[in-house]
Amino acid sequence: MQNQGLLKELIQSLCCLPGVGPKSAQRMAFHLLQRNRDGGMQLSKMLARAVNEIGHCRECRTLTETELCEVCANPLRDAETLCVVESPADVWVIDQATTFKGKYFVLHGRLSPLDGIGPDQLGFELLEQRMATGQIKELILATNSTVEGQATAHFIGEVAGKFNIRATRIAHGVPMGGELEFIDSGTLAHAFNGRREF
Amino acid sequence: MQNQGLLKELIQSLCCLPGVGPKSAQRMAFHLLQRNRDGGMQLSKMLARAVNEIGHCRECRTLTETELCEVCANPLRDAETLCVVESPADVWVIDQATTFKGKYFVLHGRLSPLDGIGPDQLGFELLEQRMATGQIKELILATNSTVEGQATAHFIGEVAGKFNIRATRIAHGVPMGGELEFIDSGTLAHAFNGRREF
Repeated sequence: MQNQGLLKELIQSLCCLPGVGPKSAQRMAFHLLQRNRDGGMQLSKMLARAVNEIGHCRECRTLTETELCEVCANPLRDAETLCVVESPADVWVIDQATTFKGKYFVLHGRLSPLDGIGPDQLGFELLEQRMATGQIKELILATNSTVEGQATAHFIGEVAGKFNIRATRIAHGVPMGGELEFIDSGTLAHAFNGRREF
Repeated sequence: MQNQGLLKELIQSLCCLPGVGPKSAQRMAFHLLQRNRDGGMQLSKMLARAVNEIGHCRECRTLTETELCEVCANPLRDAETLCVVESPADVWVIDQATTFKGKYFVLHGRLSPLDGIGPDQLGFELLEQRMATGQIKELILATNSTVEGQATAHFIGEVAGKFNIRATRIAHGVPMGGELEFIDSGTLAHAFNGRREF
């Protein structure tokens, strides 16, 4: 088709969403323009507000539009337990799935020297400051179980040791409901080595 | 999680996109805020512009931000052949896939009496006006091959007959590259009945 101007630009812009290719973007654009213009306008406004107003929490670095996020600002949350995660999405899933009532610290990434991501890029200075206050009794390392996530957990665990803070790592093994037949060998080997008293 | 304010509102707004549920919306929101704020801002602007500026072409009713769409405004397109489609997306796919160089007419739907969609809702008045000019020699009925699409094509074909305009229907049958084993019986029966000299 010739230059369809605005419609084509909208489709290109929609491609910036993760998991959205040209075909889905086209479908989204037509859907919004033909059936849900109000929704499209609302989305436009929310995107602009979110991009402009959402920053990082002063204490835990998660995404929030206020200076302190809800968790950090909540005096009922246990300040003695700090859960270290890679991304703000991890804070959400942990808070939704578990009964954890401590606080969080978001690294916004993982140690990856090849990509130029060292401790400075992950807010380690802020994390060390919090450890130095002596308030934290346990540091739960909930980084991903990728090689880099493990390395990051290891590194933070060593720093915690210097401050005499107990560092724990979330358990890895066979997922609940998982059938052994379909588990990858790395996970299965890990589950065997990490077996516990029944 | 407690009320995450703006972030949660953004996620809800993203759910208005077709094929996007709460999980994908969450992933999109985090992606935009963490990795592509420029893209998010650009998308916000394009959405607002598209919703405000894109309307319908005066002649063919397709989506366009100008009074006449590119196809209708193009004097090189053959005004004697008119292709009738259900949606603006169909205009795109036909223009991309075929060598059709005529003009289009977009119904924005199909006849569906149960949903209260009759000829008036599909711009039949405008279509009849164009047929009445005597300029159109062939009307290609390219509505979908659903029951309602077929009924719509049949209805328009009868009107075209009154104006002595030749009405043709796009061919239906086994898709190119399709294996007979996997074709539904309705299509196969249609392909048999519609067999042509080889």
